Amino acid sequence: VQVSIVCFDGFTDVDVFLLWDLLNRVQFPDWKVQLVGENDEHVSSTGLRIPMHARLAAVGTAKAVLFASGRGTRVKMNDATFLGALRLDERNQMIGSMCSGALLLAALGLLQGRTATTYPTAKAALERFGVEVVERSFVSHGNIATAAGCLAAQQLAGWVIERLAGREERQFVLQSIQPIGEGLRFDSDPRAFR
Amino acid sequence: VQVSIVCFDGFTDVDVFLLWDLLNRVQFPDWKVQLVGENDEHVSSTGLRIPMHARLAAVGTAKAVLFASGRGTRVKMNDATFLGALRLDERNQMIGSMCSGALLLAALGLLQGRTATTYPTAKAALERFGVEVVERSFVSHGNIATAAGCLAAQQLAGWVIERLAGREERQFVLQSIQPIGEGLRFDSDPRAFR
Repeated sequence: VQVSIVCFDGFTDVDVFLLWDLLNRVQFPDWKVQLVGENDEHVSSTGLRIPMHARLAAVGTAKAVLFASGRGTRVKMNDATFLGALRLDERNQMIGSMCSGALLLAALGLLQGRTATTYPTAKAALERFGVEVVERSFVSHGNIATAAGCLAAQQLAGWVIERLAGREERQFVLQSIQPIGEGLRFDSDPRAFR
Repeated sequence: VQVSIVCFDGFTDVDVFLLWDLLNRVQFPDWKVQLVGENDEHVSSTGLRIPMHARLAAVGTAKAVLFASGRGTRVKMNDATFLGALRLDERNQMIGSMCSGALLLAALGLLQGRTATTYPTAKAALERFGVEVVERSFVSHGNIATAAGCLAAQQLAGWVIERLAGREERQFVLQSIQPIGEGLRFDSDPRAFR
């Protein structure tokens, strides 16, 4: 089971790394998460140079493909080469986005006739694609989902984990990052300590 | 104003990157955040190879020094060279830790006679340092703070931001990553859109 996170220059750090960390906590046979991009490395909005695990073509064999956010989305949503390299099939793949990553789903034609959510600074641009933007942290329609507000990465990762690895696995993964004394306690089920 | 995040091999991804992203959202004159470590690069627990901005000695000029967590802490808490390179002064610097990073504060003698929090899997090891471990997401004593449970990075970053950049800045930074429709809304103060 392979999950791809699509990156590009100018991606928002926390939106990638929160998804990345949560998805890597899954304990499931042959579970593999990879960062994919056009280049060997991509530079985040804060200037971190991050190595990719594979090129964009790797999304073809992924069970789930999640799009990063950040100012890079405004470049990539108009980049025909980038968009053309993403051969996705929503009948067989889960496809989702964080924050302004919804602009890329829209540019790929995946949000037509659907509601979606996005970061406030990307709302107008998403509406220009004809998408009805709703003020919610997570919106899903079948195999397509949009999440917005960085901490909503928990819902997007949870959506993928529940469908591909089960509801119990989702619970333990999400519990493992909660603050001590709130969602996670010293006497919690040890499967939540990851 | 320089803030250092201390990394090492085997650091927990989200604990570093959530702090890193939040601290980089601060808009304050000459505000600078850096990842520091013994090497040019360090490898996270999930295998990401991350370039450092400076070596450990750079903590000497930081206003705040925050310690990463992860299985690497069990190695580093016994590494005299590593610990000796960290010249810290709690009278003039804020010093904090995420999750099992508290083991490093303890190894540096910074938690003597103080309560602290840590990740459940590090509780027994922290108690062996003679520290009273309390089940809370954030514990501070003057310039020393421990936070635990990954999402408590918000409290640790918030503690640093409020003291060094002001309460209003803390509010806008923390609001900027909340889920849409919950802590962040399309009509929120635009200063919260970062």
